[in-house]
Amino acid sequence: MMPIPKTGKDVRIACRQGSLVSNTAGLAPGFVQANLVIVPANFAYDFLLFCQRNPKPCPILEVLDKGSPFTSNIADNADIRSDIPKYRVYESDKIIDEPTSINKYWRDDLVSFLLGCSFTFDRALREYGVPVRHEEEGRNVPMYRTNIPCKGAGVFQGPLVVSMRPMTPNFALQATNITGRFPRAHGTPIHMGEPKLIGITDIQKPDYGENVSIHPGEIPVFWACGVTPQAVAVASKIPFLITHSPGHMFVSDWADHQLEGEEKIR
Amino acid sequence: MMPIPKTGKDVRIACRQGSLVSNTAGLAPGFVQANLVIVPANFAYDFLLFCQRNPKPCPILEVLDKGSPFTSNIADNADIRSDIPKYRVYESDKIIDEPTSINKYWRDDLVSFLLGCSFTFDRALREYGVPVRHEEEGRNVPMYRTNIPCKGAGVFQGPLVVSMRPMTPNFALQATNITGRFPRAHGTPIHMGEPKLIGITDIQKPDYGENVSIHPGEIPVFWACGVTPQAVAVASKIPFLITHSPGHMFVSDWADHQLEGEEKIR
Repeated sequence: MMPIPKTGKDVRIACRQGSLVSNTAGLAPGFVQANLVIVPANFAYDFLLFCQRNPKPCPILEVLDKGSPFTSNIADNADIRSDIPKYRVYESDKIIDEPTSINKYWRDDLVSFLLGCSFTFDRALREYGVPVRHEEEGRNVPMYRTNIPCKGAGVFQGPLVVSMRPMTPNFALQATNITGRFPRAHGTPIHMGEPKLIGITDIQKPDYGENVSIHPGEIPVFWACGVTPQAVAVASKIPFLITHSPGHMFVSDWADHQLEGEEKIR
Repeated sequence: MMPIPKTGKDVRIACRQGSLVSNTAGLAPGFVQANLVIVPANFAYDFLLFCQRNPKPCPILEVLDKGSPFTSNIADNADIRSDIPKYRVYESDKIIDEPTSINKYWRDDLVSFLLGCSFTFDRALREYGVPVRHEEEGRNVPMYRTNIPCKGAGVFQGPLVVSMRPMTPNFALQATNITGRFPRAHGTPIHMGEPKLIGITDIQKPDYGENVSIHPGEIPVFWACGVTPQAVAVASKIPFLITHSPGHMFVSDWADHQLEGEEKIR
Protein backbone atom coordinates (compact mmCIF):
# COMPACT_ATOMS: atom_id res chain seq x y z
CA MET A 1 0.00 0.00 0.00
CA MET A 2 1.08 3.53 -0.81
CA PRO A 3 2.38 5.53 2.20
CA ILE A 4 0.03 8.35 3.25
CA PRO A 5 1.21 11.59 1.58
CA LYS A 6 2.36 14.03 4.26
CA THR A 7 2.99 17.14 2.17
CA GLY A 8 1.46 18.85 -0.84
CA LYS A 9 4.45 17.73 -2.88
CA ASP A 10 3.94 14.09 -1.78
CA VAL A 11 0.34 14.29 -3.02
CA ARG A 12 1.33 15.85 -6.33
CA ILE A 13 4.09 13.30 -7.01
CA ALA A 14 1.68 10.44 -6.26
CA CYS A 15 -0.85 11.96 -8.67
CA ARG A 16 1.81 12.44 -11.35
CA GLN A 17 2.94 8.81 -10.99
CA GLY A 18 -0.67 7.64 -11.20
CA SER A 19 -0.66 6.00 -7.77
CA LEU A 20 -3.18 8.51 -6.29
CA VAL A 21 -6.54 8.89 -8.01
CA SER A 22 -8.83 9.26 -4.95
CA ASN A 23 -10.22 12.44 -3.42
CA THR A 24 -7.86 14.57 -1.38
CA ALA A 25 -9.91 15.10 1.80
CA GLY A 26 -7.65 14.55 4.81
CA LEU A 27 -4.47 14.22 2.73
CA ALA A 28 -1.41 16.33 3.63
CA PRO A 29 -3.16 17.97 6.58
CA GLY A 30 -2.26 21.65 7.03
CA PHE A 31 -1.46 22.20 3.35
CA VAL A 32 -3.72 24.51 1.37
CA GLN A 33 -5.92 22.73 -1.18
CA ALA A 34 -7.23 24.59 -4.22
CA ASN A 35 -10.00 24.48 -6.82
CA LEU A 36 -8.93 24.36 -10.49
CA VAL A 37 -10.60 26.06 -13.47
CA ILE A 38 -8.92 26.06 -16.91
CA VAL A 39 -10.37 28.15 -19.74
CA PRO A 40 -9.18 29.06 -23.25
CA ALA A 41 -7.31 32.40 -23.39
CA ASN A 42 -10.17 34.20 -25.17
CA PHE A 43 -12.31 33.65 -22.04
CA ALA A 44 -9.54 34.27 -19.50
CA TYR A 45 -10.13 38.02 -19.12
CA ASP A 46 -13.83 37.60 -18.39
CA PHE A 47 -13.12 34.78 -15.94
CA LEU A 48 -10.37 36.73 -14.15
CA LEU A 49 -12.68 39.75 -13.93
CA PHE A 50 -15.51 37.54 -12.61
CA CYS A 51 -13.21 36.29 -9.84
CA GLN A 52 -12.00 39.83 -9.08
CA ARG A 53 -15.60 41.05 -8.78
CA ASN A 54 -16.64 38.13 -6.56
CA PRO A 55 -13.73 37.60 -4.17
CA LYS A 56 -15.68 35.71 -1.49
CA PRO A 57 -16.67 32.73 -3.70
CA CYS A 58 -13.61 33.12 -5.99
CA PRO A 59 -10.44 33.88 -4.00
CA ILE A 60 -7.62 33.63 -6.55
CA LEU A 61 -4.45 31.98 -5.26
CA GLU A 62 -2.61 31.74 -8.59
CA VAL A 63 -3.20 32.36 -12.30
CA LEU A 64 -0.75 30.52 -14.56
CA ASP A 65 0.69 32.20 -17.64
CA LYS A 66 -1.15 31.47 -20.89
CA GLY A 67 -0.16 28.03 -22.16
CA SER A 68 2.00 27.25 -19.13
CA PRO A 69 1.06 24.21 -17.03
CA PHE A 70 3.60 25.08 -14.32
CA THR A 71 2.86 26.82 -11.01
CA SER A 72 5.23 29.27 -9.33
CA ASN A 73 3.29 30.85 -6.47
CA ILE A 74 1.42 28.33 -4.32
CA ALA A 75 3.54 25.35 -5.37
CA ASP A 76 7.07 25.03 -6.70
CA ASN A 77 6.86 23.97 -10.34
CA ALA A 78 3.82 21.71 -10.07
CA ASP A 79 2.48 20.41 -13.41
CA ILE A 80 -1.20 21.27 -13.53
CA ARG A 81 -1.75 18.60 -16.23
CA SER A 82 -0.86 15.63 -14.02
CA ASP A 83 -0.58 16.69 -10.36
CA ILE A 84 -4.29 16.48 -9.51
CA PRO A 85 -5.94 13.06 -8.90
CA LYS A 86 -8.87 13.53 -11.27
CA TYR A 87 -10.21 16.12 -13.73
CA ARG A 88 -13.42 16.93 -15.56
CA VAL A 89 -13.21 17.95 -19.21
CA TYR A 90 -16.20 19.83 -20.67
CA GLU A 91 -17.27 20.76 -24.18
CA SER A 92 -19.99 23.38 -23.90
CA ASP A 93 -21.67 22.26 -20.64
CA LYS A 94 -21.22 18.51 -21.26
CA ILE A 95 -18.65 16.38 -19.43
CA ILE A 96 -16.72 14.55 -22.15
CA ASP A 97 -14.09 12.91 -19.95
CA GLU A 98 -13.06 12.44 -16.32
CA PRO A 99 -9.36 11.55 -16.74
CA THR A 100 -6.52 11.31 -14.20
CA SER A 101 -4.26 13.46 -16.36
CA ILE A 102 -5.01 16.10 -18.99
CA ASN A 103 -1.79 15.86 -21.00
CA LYS A 104 -3.68 14.86 -24.13
CA TYR A 105 -6.08 17.82 -23.78
CA TRP A 106 -3.39 20.46 -23.22
CA ARG A 107 -3.29 23.41 -25.61
CA ASP A 108 -1.07 26.48 -25.90
CA ASP A 109 -4.03 28.80 -25.34
CA LEU A 110 -5.18 27.43 -21.96
CA VAL A 111 -5.13 29.56 -18.81
CA SER A 112 -5.30 27.85 -15.39
CA PHE A 113 -6.82 29.40 -12.28
CA LEU A 114 -6.27 28.02 -8.76
CA LEU A 115 -8.82 29.23 -6.19
CA GLY A 116 -9.04 28.98 -2.40
CA CYS A 117 -11.13 26.20 -0.82
CA SER A 118 -13.06 25.77 2.43
CA PHE A 119 -10.91 22.78 3.52
CA THR A 120 -8.60 25.44 4.96
CA PHE A 121 -11.12 26.96 7.34
CA ASP A 122 -12.79 23.61 8.18
CA ARG A 123 -9.48 22.61 9.71
CA ALA A 124 -9.28 25.88 11.68
CA LEU A 125 -12.87 25.38 12.93
CA ARG A 126 -12.04 21.85 14.07
CA GLU A 127 -8.93 23.04 15.88
CA TYR A 128 -11.07 25.50 17.85
CA GLY A 129 -13.63 22.82 18.72
CA VAL A 130 -16.34 24.16 16.39
CA PRO A 131 -18.31 21.19 15.00
CA VAL A 132 -17.89 20.46 11.28
CA ARG A 133 -20.91 18.23 10.76
CA HIS A 134 -20.16 16.82 7.31
CA GLU A 135 -16.79 15.64 8.59
CA GLU A 136 -18.38 14.11 11.72
CA GLU A 137 -20.84 12.26 9.48
CA GLY A 138 -18.28 11.31 6.82
CA ARG A 139 -20.13 13.14 4.05
CA ASN A 140 -19.42 15.77 1.45
CA VAL A 141 -20.40 19.29 2.59
CA PRO A 142 -23.98 20.28 1.54
CA MET A 143 -24.03 23.08 -1.06
CA TYR A 144 -26.94 25.17 -2.36
CA ARG A 145 -27.64 27.59 -5.18
CA THR A 146 -28.90 30.88 -3.72
CA ASN A 147 -30.93 33.78 -5.11
CA ILE A 148 -27.92 36.08 -4.63
CA PRO A 149 -26.58 37.09 -8.04
CA CYS A 150 -22.83 37.23 -8.48
CA LYS A 151 -21.50 40.34 -10.19
CA GLY A 152 -21.28 39.27 -13.83
CA ALA A 153 -18.28 39.65 -16.14
CA GLY A 154 -18.79 39.07 -19.87
CA VAL A 155 -20.11 35.54 -20.49
CA PHE A 156 -19.78 34.59 -16.83
CA GLN A 157 -23.01 35.26 -14.92
CA GLY A 158 -24.89 33.30 -12.27
CA PRO A 159 -25.97 32.88 -8.67
CA LEU A 160 -23.76 32.47 -5.63
CA VAL A 161 -23.37 28.86 -4.45
CA VAL A 162 -22.93 28.40 -0.70
CA SER A 163 -21.77 25.61 1.59
CA MET A 164 -23.60 25.00 4.87
CA ARG A 165 -22.45 23.93 8.33
CA PRO A 166 -25.05 23.59 11.12
CA MET A 167 -24.03 24.77 14.59
CA THR A 168 -25.37 26.56 17.67
CA PRO A 169 -25.58 30.36 17.51
CA ASN A 170 -22.66 30.53 19.96
CA PHE A 171 -20.50 28.41 17.69
CA ALA A 172 -21.74 30.42 14.69
CA LEU A 173 -20.39 33.61 16.24
CA GLN A 174 -17.06 31.94 17.00
CA ALA A 175 -16.94 30.46 13.48
CA THR A 176 -17.55 33.93 11.99
CA ASN A 177 -14.57 35.26 13.89
CA ILE A 178 -12.32 32.33 12.92
CA THR A 179 -13.22 32.22 9.21
CA GLY A 180 -12.94 36.02 9.01
CA ARG A 181 -9.19 35.49 9.41
CA PHE A 182 -9.15 33.65 6.05
CA PRO A 183 -10.30 36.19 3.43
CA ARG A 184 -8.65 34.06 0.73
CA ALA A 185 -10.57 30.96 1.77
CA HIS A 186 -14.09 32.50 1.57
CA GLY A 187 -13.84 34.56 4.80
CA THR A 188 -16.88 35.19 7.01
CA PRO A 189 -20.29 33.55 6.42
CA ILE A 190 -22.66 35.29 4.02
CA HIS A 191 -25.83 34.27 5.88
CA MET A 192 -27.09 32.34 8.88
CA GLY A 193 -30.42 31.24 10.24
CA GLU A 194 -33.06 31.72 7.53
CA PRO A 195 -32.37 29.70 4.35
CA LYS A 196 -35.48 31.12 2.63
CA LEU A 197 -34.04 34.63 2.77
CA ILE A 198 -31.31 33.54 0.35
CA GLY A 199 -33.61 31.45 -1.83
CA ILE A 200 -33.07 28.00 -0.32
CA THR A 201 -36.49 26.32 -0.05
CA ASP A 202 -35.51 22.90 1.31
CA ILE A 203 -32.41 22.74 3.49
CA GLN A 204 -32.50 18.92 3.38
CA LYS A 205 -32.07 18.90 -0.40
CA PRO A 206 -28.71 20.39 -1.25
CA ASP A 207 -27.98 21.13 -4.94
CA TYR A 208 -24.45 19.70 -4.61
CA GLY A 209 -22.80 17.45 -1.99
CA GLU A 210 -24.79 15.58 0.66
CA ASN A 211 -27.41 16.36 3.30
CA VAL A 212 -26.23 16.52 6.93
CA SER A 213 -28.07 16.43 10.29
CA ILE A 214 -29.12 19.68 11.96
CA HIS A 215 -29.43 19.09 15.71
CA PRO A 216 -32.00 20.81 17.98
CA GLY A 217 -30.74 24.27 18.94
CA GLU A 218 -28.59 24.58 15.81
CA ILE A 219 -28.93 27.00 12.90
CA PRO A 220 -27.59 26.60 9.37
CA VAL A 221 -24.56 28.82 8.65
CA PHE A 222 -23.68 29.58 5.01
CA TRP A 223 -20.34 30.41 3.41
CA ALA A 224 -19.58 31.48 -0.16
CA CYS A 225 -18.40 28.33 -1.95
CA GLY A 226 -15.65 27.60 -4.47
CA VAL A 227 -18.16 25.63 -6.54
CA THR A 228 -19.55 29.03 -7.64
CA PRO A 229 -16.92 29.81 -10.31
CA GLN A 230 -17.09 26.24 -11.65
CA ALA A 231 -20.89 26.30 -11.77
CA VAL A 232 -20.79 29.67 -13.54
CA ALA A 233 -18.10 28.48 -15.98
CA VAL A 234 -20.07 25.34 -16.86
CA ALA A 235 -23.35 27.29 -17.18
CA SER A 236 -21.67 29.75 -19.58
CA LYS A 237 -21.36 26.86 -22.09
CA ILE A 238 -17.97 28.01 -23.31
CA PRO A 239 -16.70 25.54 -25.92
CA PHE A 240 -13.92 24.04 -23.78
CA LEU A 241 -13.34 23.92 -20.03
CA ILE A 242 -11.39 21.78 -17.58
CA THR A 243 -11.91 21.64 -13.81
CA HIS A 244 -10.77 19.29 -11.05
CA SER A 245 -13.25 16.51 -10.30
CA PRO A 246 -15.22 17.42 -7.14
CA GLY A 247 -13.20 16.66 -4.00
CA HIS A 248 -10.08 15.87 -6.04
CA MET A 249 -8.21 19.07 -5.34
CA PHE A 250 -4.82 20.58 -6.14
CA VAL A 251 -2.67 20.33 -2.98
CA SER A 252 -0.20 23.20 -2.72
CA ASP A 253 3.03 23.88 -0.83
CA TRP A 254 1.40 26.60 1.24
CA ALA A 255 0.49 26.08 4.90
CA ASP A 256 -3.11 26.89 5.82
CA HIS A 257 -2.00 29.89 7.88
CA GLN A 258 -0.62 31.50 4.69
CA LEU A 259 -4.24 32.22 3.72
CA GLU A 260 -4.71 34.30 6.87
CA GLY A 261 -4.72 38.03 6.29
CA GLU A 262 -2.94 39.69 3.40
CA GLU A 263 -0.58 38.11 0.88
CA LYS A 264 3.12 38.50 1.63
CA ILE A 265 4.98 40.64 -0.88
CA ARG A 266 7.86 38.23 -1.49
CA MET B 1 -16.02 80.83 -4.10
CA MET B 2 -17.13 77.24 -4.51
CA PRO B 3 -18.40 75.56 -1.31
CA ILE B 4 -16.01 72.89 0.00
CA PRO B 5 -17.20 69.48 -1.30
CA LYS B 6 -18.29 67.34 1.63
CA THR B 7 -18.95 64.01 -0.12
CA GLY B 8 -17.45 62.02 -2.95
CA LYS B 9 -20.47 62.92 -5.06
CA ASP B 10 -19.94 66.66 -4.36
CA VAL B 11 -16.36 66.34 -5.60
CA ARG B 12 -17.37 64.43 -8.72
CA ILE B 13 -20.14 66.91 -9.64
CA ALA B 14 -17.74 69.83 -9.20
CA CYS B 15 -15.23 68.07 -11.47
CA ARG B 16 -17.92 67.32 -14.05
CA GLN B 17 -19.03 70.96 -14.08
CA GLY B 18 -15.43 72.11 -14.44
CA SER B 19 -15.42 74.08 -11.19
CA LEU B 20 -12.90 71.76 -9.48
CA VAL B 21 -9.54 71.19 -11.20
CA SER B 22 -7.23 71.14 -8.14
CA ASN B 23 -5.81 68.13 -6.30
CA THR B 24 -8.15 66.21 -4.03
CA ALA B 25 -6.07 66.03 -0.84
CA GLY B 26 -8.30 66.87 2.12
CA LEU B 27 -11.51 66.98 0.06
CA ALA B 28 -14.56 64.98 1.19
CA PRO B 29 -12.78 63.64 4.29
CA GLY B 30 -13.69 60.06 5.12
CA PHE B 31 -14.50 59.10 1.52
CA VAL B 32 -12.25 56.60 -0.24
CA GLN B 33 -10.09 58.12 -2.99
CA ALA B 34 -8.80 55.97 -5.82
CA ASN B 35 -6.06 55.81 -8.46
CA LEU B 36 -7.16 55.54 -12.10
CA VAL B 37 -5.52 53.56 -14.91
CA ILE B 38 -7.23 53.22 -18.31
CA VAL B 39 -5.80 50.83 -20.92
CA PRO B 40 -7.03 49.57 -24.32
CA ALA B 41 -8.89 46.23 -24.09
CA ASN B 42 -6.07 44.28 -25.70
CA PHE B 43 -3.88 45.13 -22.68
CA ALA B 44 -6.63 44.77 -20.05
CA TYR B 45 -6.03 41.08 -19.30
CA ASP B 46 -2.32 41.58 -18.65
CA PHE B 47 -3.01 44.64 -16.51
CA LEU B 48 -5.74 42.88 -14.48
CA LEU B 49 -3.42 39.90 -13.98
CA PHE B 50 -0.58 42.22 -12.93
CA CYS B 51 -2.86 43.74 -10.27
CA GLN B 52 -4.07 40.31 -9.15
CA ARG B 53 -0.47 39.12 -8.76
CA ASN B 54 0.60 42.25 -6.86
CA PRO B 55 -2.28 43.02 -4.50
CA LYS B 56 -0.31 45.18 -2.06
CA PRO B 57 0.65 47.93 -4.56
CA CYS B 58 -2.43 47.30 -6.77
CA PRO B 59 -5.57 46.76 -4.69
CA ILE B 60 -8.42 46.74 -7.22
CA LEU B 61 -11.58 48.51 -6.07
CA GLU B 62 -13.46 48.40 -9.38
CA VAL B 63 -12.89 47.41 -13.01
CA LEU B 64 -15.36 49.01 -15.42
CA ASP B 65 -16.84 47.02 -18.31
CA LYS B 66 -15.04 47.41 -21.64
CA GLY B 67 -16.04 50.71 -23.25
CA SER B 68 -18.18 51.79 -20.28
CA PRO B 69 -17.23 55.04 -18.53
CA PHE B 70 -19.73 54.44 -15.70
CA THR B 71 -18.96 53.05 -12.25
CA SER B 72 -21.31 50.78 -10.30
CA ASN B 73 -19.33 49.51 -7.32
CA ILE B 74 -17.44 52.23 -5.45
CA ALA B 75 -19.57 55.08 -6.78
CA ASP B 76 -23.12 55.27 -8.10
CA ASN B 77 -22.95 55.96 -11.82
CA ALA B 78 -19.91 58.22 -11.82
CA ASP B 79 -18.61 59.18 -15.28
CA ILE B 80 -14.93 58.31 -15.35
CA ARG B 81 -14.41 60.69 -18.32
CA SER B 82 -15.28 63.87 -16.42
CA ASP B 83 -15.52 63.18 -12.67
CA ILE B 84 -11.80 63.48 -11.88
CA PRO B 85 -10.15 66.95 -11.65
CA LYS B 86 -7.23 66.25 -13.99
CA TYR B 87 -5.92 63.42 -16.18
CA ARG B 88 -2.73 62.44 -17.95
CA VAL B 89 -2.98 61.05 -21.48
CA TYR B 90 0.00 59.03 -22.76
CA GLU B 91 1.03 57.74 -26.17
CA SER B 92 3.75 55.16 -25.66
CA ASP B 93 5.47 56.60 -22.54
CA LYS B 94 5.03 60.28 -23.53
CA ILE B 95 2.46 62.58 -21.91
CA ILE B 96 0.50 64.12 -24.79
CA ASP B 97 -2.11 65.99 -22.75
CA GLU B 98 -3.11 66.81 -19.16
CA PRO B 99 -6.80 67.65 -19.63
CA THR B 100 -9.61 68.17 -17.11
CA SER B 101 -11.90 65.79 -19.00
CA ILE B 102 -11.16 62.90 -21.36
CA ASN B 103 -14.41 62.93 -23.36
CA LYS B 104 -12.54 63.60 -26.59
CA TYR B 105 -10.14 60.70 -25.96
CA TRP B 106 -12.82 58.13 -25.10
CA ARG B 107 -12.95 54.95 -27.18
CA ASP B 108 -15.16 51.86 -27.13
CA ASP B 109 -12.20 49.62 -26.37
CA LEU B 110 -11.02 51.33 -23.16
CA VAL B 111 -11.05 49.53 -19.80
CA SER B 112 -10.84 51.58 -16.59
CA PHE B 113 -9.28 50.37 -13.34
CA LEU B 114 -9.79 52.09 -9.97
CA LEU B 115 -7.21 51.15 -7.33
CA GLY B 116 -6.95 51.78 -3.58
CA CYS B 117 -4.86 54.70 -2.32
CA SER B 118 -2.92 55.46 0.86
CA PHE B 119 -5.06 58.54 1.66
CA THR B 120 -7.35 56.04 3.39
CA PHE B 121 -4.82 54.78 5.89
CA ASP B 122 -3.15 58.20 6.37
CA ARG B 123 -6.44 59.34 7.82
CA ALA B 124 -6.62 56.30 10.11
CA LEU B 125 -3.03 56.91 11.27
CA ARG B 126 -3.83 60.56 12.07
CA GLU B 127 -6.94 59.54 14.01
CA TYR B 128 -4.77 57.29 16.20
CA GLY B 129 -2.21 60.06 16.76
CA VAL B 130 0.48 58.49 14.56
CA PRO B 131 2.45 61.30 12.84
CA VAL B 132 1.99 61.66 9.08
CA ARG B 133 5.01 63.81 8.30
CA HIS B 134 4.22 64.87 4.74
CA GLU B 135 0.84 66.18 5.93
CA GLU B 136 2.48 68.00 8.87
CA GLU B 137 4.91 69.63 6.42
CA GLY B 138 2.31 70.30 3.72
CA ARG B 139 4.13 68.20 1.11
CA ASN B 140 3.42 65.30 -1.20
CA VAL B 141 4.43 61.93 0.29
CA PRO B 142 7.98 60.84 -0.69
CA MET B 143 8.03 57.80 -2.98
CA TYR B 144 10.92 55.59 -4.10
CA ARG B 145 11.61 52.88 -6.67
CA THR B 146 12.89 49.76 -4.89
CA ASN B 147 14.90 46.74 -5.99
CA ILE B 148 11.90 44.49 -5.25
CA PRO B 149 10.53 43.14 -8.54
CA CYS B 150 6.77 42.95 -8.91
CA LYS B 151 5.43 39.67 -10.28
CA GLY B 152 5.18 40.37 -14.01
CA ALA B 153 2.17 39.77 -16.25
CA GLY B 154 2.66 39.96 -20.03
CA VAL B 155 3.94 43.40 -21.02
CA PHE B 156 3.63 44.73 -17.47
CA GLN B 157 6.88 44.27 -15.53
CA GLY B 158 8.80 46.47 -13.12
CA PRO B 159 9.91 47.28 -9.60
CA LEU B 160 7.74 47.99 -6.58
CA VAL B 161 7.35 51.69 -5.77
CA VAL B 162 6.95 52.54 -2.07
CA SER B 163 5.79 55.55 -0.07
CA MET B 164 7.64 56.49 3.12
CA ARG B 165 6.53 57.90 6.47
CA PRO B 166 9.15 58.55 9.18
CA MET B 167 8.17 57.70 12.76
CA THR B 168 9.54 56.24 16.00
CA PRO B 169 9.76 52.43 16.20
CA ASN B 170 6.88 52.51 18.70
CA PHE B 171 4.67 54.39 16.25
CA ALA B 172 5.89 52.09 13.45
CA LEU B 173 4.56 49.08 15.33
CA GLN B 174 1.23 50.81 15.94
CA ALA B 175 1.06 51.92 12.29
CA THR B 176 1.67 48.32 11.16
CA ASN B 177 -1.28 47.20 13.23
CA ILE B 178 -3.55 50.00 11.98
CA THR B 179 -2.68 49.73 8.26
CA GLY B 180 -2.96 45.93 8.45
CA ARG B 181 -6.70 46.50 8.84
CA PHE B 182 -6.77 48.00 5.30
CA PRO B 183 -5.65 45.20 2.96
CA ARG B 184 -7.34 47.04 0.07
CA ALA B 185 -5.39 50.23 0.76
CA HIS B 186 -1.88 48.68 0.67
CA GLY B 187 -2.10 46.95 4.10
CA THR B 188 0.97 46.55 6.32
CA PRO B 189 4.37 48.13 5.55
CA ILE B 190 6.72 46.16 3.32
CA HIS B 191 9.90 47.36 5.05
CA MET B 192 11.17 49.58 7.81
CA GLY B 193 14.52 50.83 9.00
CA GLU B 194 17.15 50.07 6.34
CA PRO B 195 16.42 51.75 2.98
CA LYS B 196 19.53 50.18 1.39
CA LEU B 197 18.08 46.69 1.90
CA ILE B 198 15.33 47.54 -0.59
CA GLY B 199 17.62 49.38 -3.01
CA ILE B 200 17.08 52.98 -1.83
CA THR B 201 20.49 54.67 -1.76
CA ASP B 202 19.54 58.23 -0.76
CA ILE B 203 16.45 58.60 1.44
CA GLN B 204 16.55 62.39 0.94
CA LYS B 205 16.08 62.03 -2.82
CA PRO B 206 12.69 60.44 -3.50
CA ASP B 207 11.94 59.34 -7.08
CA TYR B 208 8.41 60.79 -6.86
CA GLY B 209 6.78 63.30 -4.49
CA GLU B 210 8.77 65.43 -2.06
CA ASN B 211 11.42 64.92 0.62
CA VAL B 212 10.26 65.12 4.28
CA SER B 213 12.15 65.55 7.58
CA ILE B 214 13.23 62.50 9.57
CA HIS B 215 13.58 63.46 13.24
CA PRO B 216 16.17 61.98 15.65
CA GLY B 217 14.91 58.64 16.97
CA GLU B 218 12.73 58.01 13.90
CA ILE B 219 13.06 55.32 11.26
CA PRO B 220 11.68 55.35 7.71
CA VAL B 221 8.65 53.07 7.25
CA PHE B 222 7.75 51.94 3.73
CA TRP B 223 4.39 50.96 2.24
CA ALA B 224 3.60 49.52 -1.20
CA CYS B 225 2.39 52.46 -3.28
CA GLY B 226 -0.37 52.94 -5.85
CA VAL B 227 2.11 54.69 -8.14
CA THR B 228 3.51 51.19 -8.89
CA PRO B 229 0.84 50.15 -11.43
CA GLN B 230 0.99 53.56 -13.13
CA ALA B 231 4.79 53.50 -13.30
CA VAL B 232 4.68 49.97 -14.71
CA ALA B 233 1.96 50.89 -17.22
CA VAL B 234 3.92 53.93 -18.45
CA ALA B 235 7.20 51.95 -18.60
CA SER B 236 5.49 49.26 -20.71
CA LYS B 237 5.17 51.86 -23.52
CA ILE B 238 1.76 50.60 -24.57
CA PRO B 239 0.46 52.79 -27.40
CA PHE B 240 -2.30 54.51 -25.41
CA LEU B 241 -2.84 55.02 -21.69
CA ILE B 242 -4.77 57.40 -19.44
CA THR B 243 -4.23 57.92 -15.71
CA HIS B 244 -5.34 60.53 -13.20
CA SER B 245 -2.85 63.38 -12.76
CA PRO B 246 -0.85 62.81 -9.54
CA GLY B 247 -2.84 63.88 -6.47
CA HIS B 248 -5.99 64.45 -8.57
CA MET B 249 -7.84 61.33 -7.50
CA PHE B 250 -11.23 59.76 -8.12
CA VAL B 251 -13.34 60.33 -4.98
CA SER B 252 -15.82 57.49 -4.39
CA ASP B 253 -19.04 57.00 -2.43
CA TRP B 254 -17.37 54.52 -0.09
CA ALA B 255 -16.45 55.40 3.48
CA ASP B 256 -12.83 54.68 4.43
CA HIS B 257 -13.92 51.92 6.81
CA GLN B 258 -15.33 49.99 3.83
CA LEU B 259 -11.72 49.19 2.89
CA GLU B 260 -11.21 47.44 6.22
CA GLY B 261 -11.19 43.67 6.04
CA GLU B 262 -12.99 41.73 3.35
CA GLU B 263 -15.39 43.03 0.69
CA LYS B 264 -19.08 42.72 1.52
CA ILE B 265 -20.98 40.33 -0.73
CA ARG B 266 -23.89 42.65 -1.50
